[in-house]
Amino acid sequence: MLVTCDPCDARRWTESTTSNRRVAIVPTMGALHEGHLSLVRRARALADEVVVSIFVNPTQFAPHEDLARYPRPIEDDLAMLEREGVAMVYSPSNDAIYPPGYSTFVEPPAVAEPLEGKLRPGHFRGVCTIVLKLFQTIPAAVAVFGQKDFQQALVVQAMVRDLDIPIHIDVAPTIREPDGLAMSSRNRYLSTEQRARSLCLSRALDACSQLAQENERSLASLESAMLDQLRPGQPDGADHVDYAVVVDRRTLHPVQQSISWQASDLVALIAARLGSTRLIDNRLLHSPPMTL
Amino acid sequence: MLVTCDPCDARRWTESTTSNRRVAIVPTMGALHEGHLSLVRRARALADEVVVSIFVNPTQFAPHEDLARYPRPIEDDLAMLEREGVAMVYSPSNDAIYPPGYSTFVEPPAVAEPLEGKLRPGHFRGVCTIVLKLFQTIPAAVAVFGQKDFQQALVVQAMVRDLDIPIHIDVAPTIREPDGLAMSSRNRYLSTEQRARSLCLSRALDACSQLAQENERSLASLESAMLDQLRPGQPDGADHVDYAVVVDRRTLHPVQQSISWQASDLVALIAARLGSTRLIDNRLLHSPPMTL
Repeated sequence: MLVTCDPCDARRWTESTTSNRRVAIVPTMGALHEGHLSLVRRARALADEVVVSIFVNPTQFAPHEDLARYPRPIEDDLAMLEREGVAMVYSPSNDAIYPPGYSTFVEPPAVAEPLEGKLRPGHFRGVCTIVLKLFQTIPAAVAVFGQKDFQQALVVQAMVRDLDIPIHIDVAPTIREPDGLAMSSRNRYLSTEQRARSLCLSRALDACSQLAQENERSLASLESAMLDQLRPGQPDGADHVDYAVVVDRRTLHPVQQSISWQASDLVALIAARLGSTRLIDNRLLHSPPMTL
Repeated sequence: MLVTCDPCDARRWTESTTSNRRVAIVPTMGALHEGHLSLVRRARALADEVVVSIFVNPTQFAPHEDLARYPRPIEDDLAMLEREGVAMVYSPSNDAIYPPGYSTFVEPPAVAEPLEGKLRPGHFRGVCTIVLKLFQTIPAAVAVFGQKDFQQALVVQAMVRDLDIPIHIDVAPTIREPDGLAMSSRNRYLSTEQRARSLCLSRALDACSQLAQENERSLASLESAMLDQLRPGQPDGADHVDYAVVVDRRTLHPVQQSISWQASDLVALIAARLGSTRLIDNRLLHSPPMTL
């Protein structure tokens, strides 16, 4: 496994490899867990060689966010990736990515505006910029992102389409703990007590999804079913709910109750806080099975 | 010569060619003149195959600018490029470049802020976006831009450096009419009377350059030497001068009179209007020859 922090090295390796091998990239911020490893395995199924990037990207964190405390267990990460048969790990320094005088950014596509875009101003500008840069340095045929960051995957897909970047964006299913919590590097921030309460997110999505399958036609009911589980501010609920919405799964904009929608057009998305830890999760809704 | 309006065709051709040939791209808005042809010849000297793109990019024009009347003599352009031995012309439609729902843009680097950036808000956002898209579709080793659009060349160089785009930006000297007017597609807008007055730009740059070579140390004197030639508002001068400045040739910011500068750090830049036609020109300044 080649481990490099040098963009020129990384590009040279990829260029020489892509001449006869199909390369997939899995962009990460490190602190790897089973969710990341599932992306790596999916990338291996889609390509001949897998590259993983590890970079805690400062431009996607707002000043008050958790950049400083974000976990960086690089030795553990490299050992895990070695075991997965990854061909190259690209782990650049901040200075290699944002040298003095750096000033070009990507203005993200429209799908970046609602939800995380509203709550985390500048977040997707940072995400788009680093992802575009990674795709220039590692000209892979395919990149694998996790569905857990649902809006991020839509934003990257729209950017790649708009900017004609020659890469396919594959979105892999969310991996969960046995009790339902979506895997996230931020889960390690949770105290035992918060960890127990964190299940309200997946329970809320279960409840919403169940109602949709039972052909509930009221979007307000689908959303209030989530809040019933999230119990914001209650001792057994989330400390704060940033959003818990059912929206169009392509645009992430609200669907008019009056127009004819199918549950399969919709996605339920949640962002909630437990203490100072912010968790997100989502679920694609499905229409009721056809009955004869 | 392959002529295509299809991004997939253009990319396929370039990918198959770059496997064993070095490709150079010359991005243009068409209405080709000897200046463009000099870029094509320079590209030929730098690479095995030359691609020319022709696209009048709407996002780099402000609403009040000359997008609608910008000349589009595509048959003449193609004939000229055929004679130059160009391998491919990529001439996409507006819809291929900006399909419905298009919404991702490049936020340009800092060097885009002064001068044209101030006077043409959004101009470099449009330039950076189309150039980035062209570089994704036509993954050439080198791109040739003209020095006539000096700030544009600096902006593209900074964008390419910041975003890690694997292409070299070559900047080719300005080509002039025998009487000194810098060649531009917009020169064809000039009436005979305006064409005569348009020489004030190159005369102003001559005067400034001459003074610098004579070791004039006052930046104000260098700039006023230009205004003496431009004669804004006078019957024999430019109708309006947007700017006529001597600035740092890398940042385009004013140089402090108090600090130690060399003329070879400086560039003189002019934007002036004759009737409704806006012309730009520039000159790199040179220090006086060393004397013993």
